[in-house]
Amino acid sequence: MTRNELINLIREKQSFLCIGLDTDLNKIPPHLLETEDPVFEFNKAIIDATNELAVAYKPNLAFYESMGIKGWTSLAKTEQYLRQFNVFTIADAKRGDIGNTSKQYAKAMFDPDSGFDFDAVTAAPYMGEDSVKPFLDFEGKWVILLALTSNKGSDDFQMLTLGKSGFNLYEEVIIKSLEWGTESDMMYVIGATKAEKLEKIRNMIPDHFLLVPGVGAQGGSLKEVAKYGMNQDCGLLVNSSRGIIYASHGKDFADKAREESKKIQEEMAVYLSNC
Amino acid sequence: MTRNELINLIREKQSFLCIGLDTDLNKIPPHLLETEDPVFEFNKAIIDATNELAVAYKPNLAFYESMGIKGWTSLAKTEQYLRQFNVFTIADAKRGDIGNTSKQYAKAMFDPDSGFDFDAVTAAPYMGEDSVKPFLDFEGKWVILLALTSNKGSDDFQMLTLGKSGFNLYEEVIIKSLEWGTESDMMYVIGATKAEKLEKIRNMIPDHFLLVPGVGAQGGSLKEVAKYGMNQDCGLLVNSSRGIIYASHGKDFADKAREESKKIQEEMAVYLSNC
Repeated sequence: MTRNELINLIREKQSFLCIGLDTDLNKIPPHLLETEDPVFEFNKAIIDATNELAVAYKPNLAFYESMGIKGWTSLAKTEQYLRQFNVFTIADAKRGDIGNTSKQYAKAMFDPDSGFDFDAVTAAPYMGEDSVKPFLDFEGKWVILLALTSNKGSDDFQMLTLGKSGFNLYEEVIIKSLEWGTESDMMYVIGATKAEKLEKIRNMIPDHFLLVPGVGAQGGSLKEVAKYGMNQDCGLLVNSSRGIIYASHGKDFADKAREESKKIQEEMAVYLSNC
Repeated sequence: MTRNELINLIREKQSFLCIGLDTDLNKIPPHLLETEDPVFEFNKAIIDATNELAVAYKPNLAFYESMGIKGWTSLAKTEQYLRQFNVFTIADAKRGDIGNTSKQYAKAMFDPDSGFDFDAVTAAPYMGEDSVKPFLDFEGKWVILLALTSNKGSDDFQMLTLGKSGFNLYEEVIIKSLEWGTESDMMYVIGATKAEKLEKIRNMIPDHFLLVPGVGAQGGSLKEVAKYGMNQDCGLLVNSSRGIIYASHGKDFADKAREESKKIQEEMAVYLSNC
């Protein structure tokens, strides 16, 4: 999906909601456990109930990997199911390795012959340029680079101040990586719990999309994120996982997921009217 | 495997060789492509031919993921096959995410119910403490944290100097992470191409094991690594991937892999006599 297509999708749906598919067998409604592929059945029901309200879906690969080959199969079916909808799909994988290895990770996420045809993958910056570039070699695909994450551990290294430039490490990651890609193939992960930093970040990268996790269960505020993070094209994908997909643990889980999504989408529509 | 068991294994085999299973369908001998699971057949032959000479095996997950469910199946069979040998097994996955997600990645690599029972996993430090700790919660398992990697991109962030401490980022990663684990459950990745840094690193972490990739195809020197990196318990696992597994592309590939491994093991035995 191109940048313009994504922007049009946001305008059309009046939403910049990304739904995180962190699907966990221990948390899905018990009646689904009797089906052949409970994880896929759960995802399918969530997607069916919410696809008019969300512009993006983000399966979190850890949750599928922890179920071994069965989980990998559920993920493949989910990604294939998503292809029929007009949505942006993100493999939340946080991958990154030396060049010839990252090339294989890129193939895994972006080459349909491997089973996956995601629009984007999240990547970790620690290993530098040659660990990220192979993802950018796939035409029409996106890298979403970790910059400032939503967790407590983000203070350990991301917030450290560098000697020469005086930048925090996460700022240096943003600045350096601007040499690798453009606003048409790179986004950045900025945690909603760090909304106060968004204004400064917007000055550094006015045109890039930001993927913002941490609204909901992790405590970030959508209002703050929209206030400081939005640009003229919206420029935001705000993710909610647990707050939507586990809104109910009963048979009404999909309806409740739709209700939660609808609440968020309606709030987003208000903020979009200002951009 | 415990630290003592690993040290005994190194003494017994007179080797600190780790063989990287970066198995690529485009590089394995063509006659294997006719078998039902060429990747597993290749790995099995390599393991059979080299397990007396190597103390560790390190499948690189990217190469399996890029083959989708088939690749994941080959990886599971490979890990299960390795269980019969007295070797240390490393999932080279470079994982790391917020706490509840890293817990799922840990389960994927360390909980046999998921299919995998690796001894260790490589992890990326960018997201800090709560992204690494869940791996350490698995008794008897190891985290191998990226510190200073062997690729060109390691200069981009790992070598940056921090303002307050004056340390390079990779040094700060080592120092900070000493609060998270011990020499009995943590190791560090230090690229062989950075052998000149090993002396300084040894002063910081005299007792920790180091996983050293980059000997062979990437140009690092085993002699230099042993000279500057070895401690009284050896303290090194030196990895070679392409130089061993693709030593021949013909039907003699396993024999040639053994020959290459033997050469390296014999050189290692000389260095071990000094420690």
